[in-house]
Amino acid sequence: MNPTPGLSEFEFIDRLIKAHCAQGQPFYAHPQALGIGDDAALLPALDPGYQHVVATDMLIEGRHYFPDVAPDALGHKVLAVNLSDLAAMGAEPVAFTLAAGIKRIDVPWMEAFFKGLLALARLHQCALIGGDTTRTAPDAPDVFSVTVIGRVPIGAALCRHGLREGDELWVSGDLGDGSFCVRERRSSKKLLWPEPRLALGLALRGIAHSAIDISDGLLSEVNHLLKNSSARAQEGQSFCAHLNWSSLPLGHEVARALSAGKLSEREARIFSATGGDEYELCFSAPAVQSARIRRLADDLNLPLTCIGKIRHADSAHVLWTDAHAKPLDADLLEELAQSGFDHFRHNP
Amino acid sequence: MNPTPGLSEFEFIDRLIKAHCAQGQPFYAHPQALGIGDDAALLPALDPGYQHVVATDMLIEGRHYFPDVAPDALGHKVLAVNLSDLAAMGAEPVAFTLAAGIKRIDVPWMEAFFKGLLALARLHQCALIGGDTTRTAPDAPDVFSVTVIGRVPIGAALCRHGLREGDELWVSGDLGDGSFCVRERRSSKKLLWPEPRLALGLALRGIAHSAIDISDGLLSEVNHLLKNSSARAQEGQSFCAHLNWSSLPLGHEVARALSAGKLSEREARIFSATGGDEYELCFSAPAVQSARIRRLADDLNLPLTCIGKIRHADSAHVLWTDAHAKPLDADLLEELAQSGFDHFRHNP
Repeated sequence: MNPTPGLSEFEFIDRLIKAHCAQGQPFYAHPQALGIGDDAALLPALDPGYQHVVATDMLIEGRHYFPDVAPDALGHKVLAVNLSDLAAMGAEPVAFTLAAGIKRIDVPWMEAFFKGLLALARLHQCALIGGDTTRTAPDAPDVFSVTVIGRVPIGAALCRHGLREGDELWVSGDLGDGSFCVRERRSSKKLLWPEPRLALGLALRGIAHSAIDISDGLLSEVNHLLKNSSARAQEGQSFCAHLNWSSLPLGHEVARALSAGKLSEREARIFSATGGDEYELCFSAPAVQSARIRRLADDLNLPLTCIGKIRHADSAHVLWTDAHAKPLDADLLEELAQSGFDHFRHNP
Repeated sequence: MNPTPGLSEFEFIDRLIKAHCAQGQPFYAHPQALGIGDDAALLPALDPGYQHVVATDMLIEGRHYFPDVAPDALGHKVLAVNLSDLAAMGAEPVAFTLAAGIKRIDVPWMEAFFKGLLALARLHQCALIGGDTTRTAPDAPDVFSVTVIGRVPIGAALCRHGLREGDELWVSGDLGDGSFCVRERRSSKKLLWPEPRLALGLALRGIAHSAIDISDGLLSEVNHLLKNSSARAQEGQSFCAHLNWSSLPLGHEVARALSAGKLSEREARIFSATGGDEYELCFSAPAVQSARIRRLADDLNLPLTCIGKIRHADSAHVLWTDAHAKPLDADLLEELAQSGFDHFRHNP
């Protein structure tokens, strides 16, 4: 990365605005819309019966991505992780802002970054409407913060607190490759080019009772569903999840390492159960929707796996059983209990 | 700052949510609203005829603030600089998200930070609705990124492109203390506790033709108004600003240094004309509104100073005159031309 002397922040941002607006984004054609270039952006008024949805995620060099990541993949990812949050709400994207703290403006690097970012933005008709760029100290990590805004019919959002007794719990895609490839310091499509499950989220409106995206690991997310839903349940009533250990879908890389004898089945499923950086959806739906969900998997060409059931309980917790409906051994349960992803607890 | 062992990110965020929601924010009482604690937040649908306004700003330790800043002042400032953008649009605040990358969770420090942040949020009924917290490396600068969402009647926003021939150009408050105190490494109320001019922005709806907030220095912001307005003007027509050097309002600290002979009048006005970190508004209005604006200054107890006029011209530019309506000397003009604030050009 070579610095480009003389290219000012304003010139750079001007160039970016032109490149973006030249793409004929529908957002920019709306008479009520105002995008990059003012103190703030203006969102067109929503159709009656809709409300806006807002999510924010920050990626930090060396913490969320390797410094040598391909810039187009990084541009894709900073937006994808935010779109994944909209997907988990059953929302459609509208627009996003990008705040960046970067060590230097390297034009080819930044162009590749924006190429990846804006390709995903166009695919999902999510317009870049604002930004803030700061140069950081030469030894500081780069940082990118995106806030994404979507829309959803009032009352139709898929929330974490929506679990109901008897719901089946499902996950999209497969799990474990993200964290396995981080450990192996290998690249993987999952890790570099996560696909936000927006079409799935949209299709689950009216079918699912609750949903969450798997950014911090399946088990951690299931615990969020249980806690949020239990907090809204009747006095003294909580939810527990009966999860089937052998049903957890394994990522391609994890499955290959298992076949090659590089991972035991136990290790492989631990990656599936606890690994972060997945951006799949975990959702609950009444059992009566099971056939419809299986058809949806065919329509979207996306595996959807039922991994367990939701039951009432005295406290929010997860109960694991193996393929023979027996409890997992105590060592494994302890290992799973210790594995909840937490930036502050687990990162050195 | 002592790290607190064992306090996890989730525990910390849980504590924060409870503290915030316990404040009885009107946002949280709305049946359509969903705040912190899900994949994304839900904003209640706006009244018909309104649209949302979105701005984002990132503050980085050592770049935008000194590492030893008081945490409550920093919490105030990360929101204030964003609310200032809403003020410049004539918008009312609705809600905001906070993404933070921090070296460690120090509970007393973070509590003071949130005390400052949430006091300003409550004052302006702007609800904290989402967040993302990451631990950074021990030697990385802390970083805070806020995205604020406001509302404005459709078509009523004060934009940068609204200048008209004959408009008078005004600034609120006084200018220069922010940058002067940075240079002197002294604290000042302006620098530490900027007051977003939301009441002024609201009152200027229907009066002002255009507005901008002075984050990067008055001269730089006037150039934004001229460029954005000229880009939307009729073919071949641009706007220029005739500015009166001697009318520039001096900050209290700058004026005191001038009185004490520590600054020349020329140096003092250069701080006023070019210094960043002000968060005052610069706006244009037709001359017929002059008396109304002066009354507004009394009502708001906030000085509003007319600093010049907008004229048609062949190209967007600023023309300075002194108290005797004569051009400024060439050296001073060159110095002003060089001074436009730019993170990438001017920060080492």
